[in-house]
Amino acid sequence: MRNFDINEDPHRRFNPLINEWVLVSPHRAKRPWQGQNEKIHTDELPEYDATCYLCPGNVRANGENNPKYESSFVFENDFAAVKQEPILFEEELKPTFFKAVPERGIAKVVCFSPRHDLTLPEMDLPGIETIIRTWQKEYTELGSVDYINHVQIFENKGSVMGCSNPHPHGQIWAQSSLPTQVEKTQNSLKAYFDKNQSNLLLDYLKEELKLNERIVIENEHFVALVPFWAIWPFETMIISKRHITKITEFTSEEVSAYASILKALTIKYDNLFETSFPYSSGIHQAPTDGEEYPEWQFHMHFYPPLLRSASVKKFMVGYEMMGEAQRDITPEKSAAVLKALPGVHYKNK
Amino acid sequence: MRNFDINEDPHRRFNPLINEWVLVSPHRAKRPWQGQNEKIHTDELPEYDATCYLCPGNVRANGENNPKYESSFVFENDFAAVKQEPILFEEELKPTFFKAVPERGIAKVVCFSPRHDLTLPEMDLPGIETIIRTWQKEYTELGSVDYINHVQIFENKGSVMGCSNPHPHGQIWAQSSLPTQVEKTQNSLKAYFDKNQSNLLLDYLKEELKLNERIVIENEHFVALVPFWAIWPFETMIISKRHITKITEFTSEEVSAYASILKALTIKYDNLFETSFPYSSGIHQAPTDGEEYPEWQFHMHFYPPLLRSASVKKFMVGYEMMGEAQRDITPEKSAAVLKALPGVHYKNK
Ligand SMILES: O=P(O)(O)O[C@H]1O[C@H](CO)[C@@H](O)[C@H](O)[C@H]1O
Ligand SMILES: O=P(O)(O)O[C@H]1O[C@H](CO)[C@@H](O)[C@H](O)[C@H]1O
Repeated sequence: MRNFDINEDPHRRFNPLINEWVLVSPHRAKRPWQGQNEKIHTDELPEYDATCYLCPGNVRANGENNPKYESSFVFENDFAAVKQEPILFEEELKPTFFKAVPERGIAKVVCFSPRHDLTLPEMDLPGIETIIRTWQKEYTELGSVDYINHVQIFENKGSVMGCSNPHPHGQIWAQSSLPTQVEKTQNSLKAYFDKNQSNLLLDYLKEELKLNERIVIENEHFVALVPFWAIWPFETMIISKRHITKITEFTSEEVSAYASILKALTIKYDNLFETSFPYSSGIHQAPTDGEEYPEWQFHMHFYPPLLRSASVKKFMVGYEMMGEAQRDITPEKSAAVLKALPGVHYKNK
Repeated sequence: MRNFDINEDPHRRFNPLINEWVLVSPHRAKRPWQGQNEKIHTDELPEYDATCYLCPGNVRANGENNPKYESSFVFENDFAAVKQEPILFEEELKPTFFKAVPERGIAKVVCFSPRHDLTLPEMDLPGIETIIRTWQKEYTELGSVDYINHVQIFENKGSVMGCSNPHPHGQIWAQSSLPTQVEKTQNSLKAYFDKNQSNLLLDYLKEELKLNERIVIENEHFVALVPFWAIWPFETMIISKRHITKITEFTSEEVSAYASILKALTIKYDNLFETSFPYSSGIHQAPTDGEEYPEWQFHMHFYPPLLRSASVKKFMVGYEMMGEAQRDITPEKSAAVLKALPGVHYKNK
């Protein structure tokens, strides 16, 4: 009988952040692909698009006019999934199967810059720092609203990721409840902290830095790595090295370092298949209900779907939906590939 | 302050099967869509395709020849995610962050019929019964392998769902461990059973039949409904009315009734947008480790991505990945739409 080889044999890995497993099938990377190909958008976008409802000065979907903004620009989502309006709710006695509770919140759109054509990897560092400061401001302001207990900052990049407008932008959904995934993470961080009196993600980061097998980029204040339990082919996570529970704790040096690692990581992503690399990214950090959260550690997830080329993505379907997440290429392999990519954007070669 | 109106106001619903919440935003159904459009395949497929590696008599990807099969046909996946080979594994003492365990299993492909052009809704009832009997046989045979404790039967239909070959087929991944999603369901069913000495899904079904708000189709032995906590726009679940823990317990009358509800439901799906409706479906039933599972109840999930038309799907991205599943149309609305659709396939109108 052969000995287990993590680089070759099917295995499961455990994600201690959400207490779930992922099935890893390294040998399967070789299977041919005859399935759906994604459309590749190769047209260069203009700096300004008169028909874009996010460009400065243009009219939005709801009829309002955007200001002639010059850095980042935030407005309330015209089609928000949550609303500010308070709702009277008297819980009726119902069988456990029909549990429904109103949810209050605020949803915003963050245009990264006036430029219709500049995604994160192509922006300059001061521009990215402006976005980070905008996130800080929004986290503070939204977080201080009495009924807001969680602020979810995220970006859907690319039409493959359901992004409905190519003008580079992110979103913020702030709400009363801890969303499901955040609650899972919260529970894991808390359980680890209670047991070990230390921080799960900082302890994990220490081990990863020692092993140096999954580190993609490191600077003075941040590390970008492929988590041991990554689900998506080129999934990464940015973690701050210092114990930081929320984005507002960053020093201005850390803001710069964060901007720099964001740019460096997204440049590598674009370089991977020489395409504007699609992903969903999002920041996980402490809730905003006013409590202390020493178990929290600021981190940002990147979930990119592409697998083999600019047009072939990984589908999380059938088995993955019914059973569990499954990946073909090992996290170590993905990290090595990303690490080896040049630090200069392919368009500037 | 207005009173909570579940048909109009943003709210969260609880899924007792997996202990997770979903965010429902009924008002958001009105938002315009400028995002990605899916390709619609309107070409009629031939009955037989000489280039298809699943058609009878053809050569497969691994060089083997398919037999000239005449009903359903099962073979081992040429690019299996799990393998039968036993692997020697000595757990090393590692920090909790690097938990990896080899996983053993068998992966199969089930061609529904020799016909390259007939999906479930277009097959005749005897043909669908043959598939069900094939599933029974595979569940028994795979389940009796000593190291197989779970048998996941599923189908990815349509290229939108990552299906790599249009010849109608499903898959079976059988393995040693309970996959993550099944383990969650198992835990919920067990906890409910231990507390109430009754079956969660049967008790739920009783309430749904009383309310009759989310029932799409009902026959003597099965019900197809939109779960109260459905995530996908037109998600449904087929539940057997009798207490049945696994597919092998079906009487032959139940096999017929199951074939009939499968056909009826998938016809409604095709009729919804007059297209071959993409989905991932999968059967959840008792594990095959030889234990008794009175808490289990046979059910089948359908997770279809389409939202507004044959080309506009729901994206489970950014907020959904970082936070929690979110839907725009209420399950009650979806059930009413599906229920009202004709029972005859649009191609036969
Ligand atoms: O096995 P297939 O059809 O080649 O592949 C499809 O189904 C599998 C099981 O759900 C997924 O892991 C793949 O991502 C998907 O493309
Ligand atoms: O808000 P947008 O960009 O219109 O929509 C996109 O992001 C949302 C938040 O992740 C998702 O709910 C939508 O399915 C997706 O298409």
